[in-house]
Amino acid sequence: MESMTTDALGPAIRRIRDEVHGVLGGLSEAPAEELESFLGAVADADRVFVHGAGRSGLALRMVAMRLMHLGLDVHVVGETTAPAIRPGDLLLTASGSGTTGGIVRAAQTAVSVGARVAAITTAAASPLAGLAHAVIVVPAAEKLDRSGAASAQYAGSLFEQSVVLLGDALFHALWQRSGATADEIWPRHANLE
Amino acid sequence: MESMTTDALGPAIRRIRDEVHGVLGGLSEAPAEELESFLGAVADADRVFVHGAGRSGLALRMVAMRLMHLGLDVHVVGETTAPAIRPGDLLLTASGSGTTGGIVRAAQTAVSVGARVAAITTAAASPLAGLAHAVIVVPAAEKLDRSGAASAQYAGSLFEQSVVLLGDALFHALWQRSGATADEIWPRHANLE
Amino acid sequence: MESMTTDALGPAIRRIRDEVHGVLGGLSEAPAEELESFLGAVADADRVFVHGAGRSGLALRMVAMRLMHLGLDVHVVGETTAPAIRPGDLLLTASGSGTTGGIVRAAQTAVSVGARVAAITTAAASPLAGLAHAVIVVPAAEKLDRSGAASAQYAGSLFEQSVVLLGDALFHALWQRSGATADEIWPRHANLE
Amino acid sequence: MESMTTDALGPAIRRIRDEVHGVLGGLSEAPAEELESFLGAVADADRVFVHGAGRSGLALRMVAMRLMHLGLDVHVVGETTAPAIRPGDLLLTASGSGTTGGIVRAAQTAVSVGARVAAITTAAASPLAGLAHAVIVVPAAEKLDRSGAASAQYAGSLFEQSVVLLGDALFHALWQRSGATADEIWPRHANLE
Repeated sequence: MESMTTDALGPAIRRIRDEVHGVLGGLSEAPAEELESFLGAVADADRVFVHGAGRSGLALRMVAMRLMHLGLDVHVVGETTAPAIRPGDLLLTASGSGTTGGIVRAAQTAVSVGARVAAITTAAASPLAGLAHAVIVVPAAEKLDRSGAASAQYAGSLFEQSVVLLGDALFHALWQRSGATADEIWPRHANLE
Repeated sequence: MESMTTDALGPAIRRIRDEVHGVLGGLSEAPAEELESFLGAVADADRVFVHGAGRSGLALRMVAMRLMHLGLDVHVVGETTAPAIRPGDLLLTASGSGTTGGIVRAAQTAVSVGARVAAITTAAASPLAGLAHAVIVVPAAEKLDRSGAASAQYAGSLFEQSVVLLGDALFHALWQRSGATADEIWPRHANLE
Repeated sequence: MESMTTDALGPAIRRIRDEVHGVLGGLSEAPAEELESFLGAVADADRVFVHGAGRSGLALRMVAMRLMHLGLDVHVVGETTAPAIRPGDLLLTASGSGTTGGIVRAAQTAVSVGARVAAITTAAASPLAGLAHAVIVVPAAEKLDRSGAASAQYAGSLFEQSVVLLGDALFHALWQRSGATADEIWPRHANLE
Repeated sequence: MESMTTDALGPAIRRIRDEVHGVLGGLSEAPAEELESFLGAVADADRVFVHGAGRSGLALRMVAMRLMHLGLDVHVVGETTAPAIRPGDLLLTASGSGTTGGIVRAAQTAVSVGARVAAITTAAASPLAGLAHAVIVVPAAEKLDRSGAASAQYAGSLFEQSVVLLGDALFHALWQRSGATADEIWPRHANLE
């Protein structure tokens, strides 16, 4: 019967709903200082550069677009017009394992030029977390954990979903803090297709 | 006190957790035929072309990457090597309002050349839904609804989050159906940064 | 013998060399007012938005990256962080035929919000040229001319090559005008991979 | 007087015309075996992956789009749906200095999995050239040469222009070799905006 299997869409949706509910619940109970430090790193940056590999990178682009809507000066590493990072800027990264080569190298470069680094990861003891000035540890499976213990989903899916949702929470809090109405933000949306 | 406000990160995470939980719960209870029809449209396509504007487009790219991992022949409209769509192909789209100009025009083109269209939208009576062969209606606020009635989040955020999570549920169901192990899928992940 | 055929690389390089030489020669002899007007449109803009379809769009991205190096505030339409265009901004476009749907619509939008439009095209009497405040007409085949009369190359190749080279000439003139040394520009190059 | 300065567009166009003419002339006289070997590496590949940093990467994307039009199976490293490279595939790269970190690492990975590498560079003795199975050496300034000796243009501009034009020559020769008419190629052009 369809509703009993996970190869139908309804049960798959419920599974993801439950996994996401658990992770966001855990995240929301992280120490307030850890969350506030992360929020402050974004709010205080001159410019924000987002950078992630694969699906984590796409998740961060979703966040970047919202931060642009909010009026922040935001760039996506690898897109055409991203300039050089410099002191006062923030590199906002996500890597489940905290070991992704290109992301760790970018964090090293950012640190070396005097910029700050904020990292979303599952691995508090990882090289990326070690380099970062603000870290949020997501209680989700990392990409290389294919045991299924932390999540029934494939590879880093739950982590990548968490980056989208955490990033949107970041936007939501900054938006509320800004006092801007939705109608004030709307004119910043791209008007050329 | 931090937990009473929404301009802190913890409360914002909880708010999104609850909104997402509600939408996914609603989605999982959609008629099984509607969900199965959508799943079948993807599974039966020769090739899948994903196309969305702004954050919906980024959400669909996350889905496209997973479908590629599963071995499907997938393209992102607008990326360099996306070819022409043709009969037997599927255009997989997402538009909260179902009226986004570029997406509706793409759906018209797809239909005109004999390809099929699958649409994720909040608006069952929209032009996009009218063109589509398979539709999933997401019970989330659409982008232009700035009343805050359906979601406390900004614009189409809840819809865009739903596209990510629904897309990953689509992948999860197709993966289970394929019988492939995680270790069999892994070698398809990009190995060049 | 290799040098007699065009299916070898050497003869193909020579053919392109000669076609490019002819087009750039013609371009360089355009009325000085036309060229100066185009240059001025870029130099005087608050922000520059580049937008083209397919290979023309990639050519304009190459130009956009250089304009960013020069210190201009530049955006690529369709990239994640491109904001809304507004009065004082310039939409810098390229379309061989001057009829590409998405580009003409974008030009209409730009004009409607009070921004200016600069167009590179082969068609002086096209809708795009009609909307533009500054136009450069490239004496190259347009994409849909498959007669081979204007160029032995495929479709709009010669036009697209001209956009790259004309765009770099635009940069070169603006750079000379700026008085900056190469060493002063260099630090703006992206330092994160 | 306008024609005496290089800060006007006409003289800048002529300067680029002359520099490009010189480089392409030099390239066309490279040993036929070197050119044929490069052409063969592309023609014989199961799939072609293009990869370059910055403007070199954009130039290679222009080439990739044309190779797709010709019917080759082409991917851009870093775009959403690029899969893993494997034996039988070709990594087509461009780096003026032949030392760009990400490109050299990608070439090492390609070699390590049994794929082939083709490189366009100004530096015959560089690490990238050393890894490559087919190399074309462009007689243009490399990016870090800011002496102005090889080109009056900024940084690697002349090299990047050469990648566009050489890539299009590659397409032209492969097209002639294929015997396809323009009308046979046209239907492969993207038909969704």
